[in-house]
Amino acid sequence: MINYPIKRKSQVKTTSYANLGMTLESDIEATNTYYLNMGIAVIHKKPTPIQVVNVSYPARNKAKITEAYYKTPSTTDFNGIYHGKYIDFDAKETNSTTSMPLKNVHEHQIDHLRNVYKQGGIAFLIVHFKKYNQYFLLPAEVLFSFWDLQYDKEKGRKSIPYSAFQEKAYIIPFGFQPRLDYIKVIDQFLSSKF
Amino acid sequence: MINYPIKRKSQVKTTSYANLGMTLESDIEATNTYYLNMGIAVIHKKPTPIQVVNVSYPARNKAKITEAYYKTPSTTDFNGIYHGKYIDFDAKETNSTTSMPLKNVHEHQIDHLRNVYKQGGIAFLIVHFKKYNQYFLLPAEVLFSFWDLQYDKEKGRKSIPYSAFQEKAYIIPFGFQPRLDYIKVIDQFLSSKF
Repeated sequence: MINYPIKRKSQVKTTSYANLGMTLESDIEATNTYYLNMGIAVIHKKPTPIQVVNVSYPARNKAKITEAYYKTPSTTDFNGIYHGKYIDFDAKETNSTTSMPLKNVHEHQIDHLRNVYKQGGIAFLIVHFKKYNQYFLLPAEVLFSFWDLQYDKEKGRKSIPYSAFQEKAYIIPFGFQPRLDYIKVIDQFLSSKF
Repeated sequence: MINYPIKRKSQVKTTSYANLGMTLESDIEATNTYYLNMGIAVIHKKPTPIQVVNVSYPARNKAKITEAYYKTPSTTDFNGIYHGKYIDFDAKETNSTTSMPLKNVHEHQIDHLRNVYKQGGIAFLIVHFKKYNQYFLLPAEVLFSFWDLQYDKEKGRKSIPYSAFQEKAYIIPFGFQPRLDYIKVIDQFLSSKF
């Protein structure tokens, strides 16, 4: 006598587990929720900026947007606070096994990270090398140096080599709870700096 | 001989000057732009969160959102960094001459400000009493005490009296550049605390 309904229920659960690690963004959001619930840090993803052109009101107090367009964000996607410190970062993924192309980063994001860095904020990228299933915290200073170097005629290149990640970035371990414990890496990173 | 077109043009200019101070949000955004350009602070308004339901692609690489709805934000509207410190606030306006109704503040905003406060962030509201044309920086602690007190059967009230703003909040002077120099007030506020 097998209880099929219960089996099915557990199968549904298994399926949803398979979504773990599906996208970098959702892994970071799950991590942020964990940090928030545990009182470790308050970090949120900013909403995607949308230019609303037309709104209709099919019912009272119910606005329905009928025409809108995605806008280019002027900042990075994530920011917040950890132990009184301002945190600011963006998340990038690459299929490359040799480097992260700099075209993955927008000029306005570099400008924003520079402004944050000048104000004493903790600025970085989280970079996922999908082929290796490796996650790195790349400090903004390293990003800036490669960004500026790309305009150098001799030494310039349009990407950050994987070897630079191994040397100058910090590995973020992928786990169950939290999935991407980047705050732990920030502690490590800060203690190496000061 | 009067040159009507020129006159009209200058009238248009006058009209657009009249928009200065039109809305609290635009005054804060103009102030933030000034802070950013002067390297004083990096503070941005978060985009309004929108739930996108349908997108069409009338042209390649051109997404047109055809159905979407406003979502309730889970945080406050403004955050950023000033001198390494995390800043977080929301802006409220009231037509009342006697108090700011607590219904102007959402429960999730209180929760968010509490989380920020616990992490050591600088959390507050900017409140505009329109009838007096006065702007106040209300520290989160003062907001929390009135918020919690509203559930007290004897002393509870559903608003923060204007007198409490005069006693416990800080006046933000309205100027030309920056329009609402709340960072100056934060300096004053921090020096009184520490």
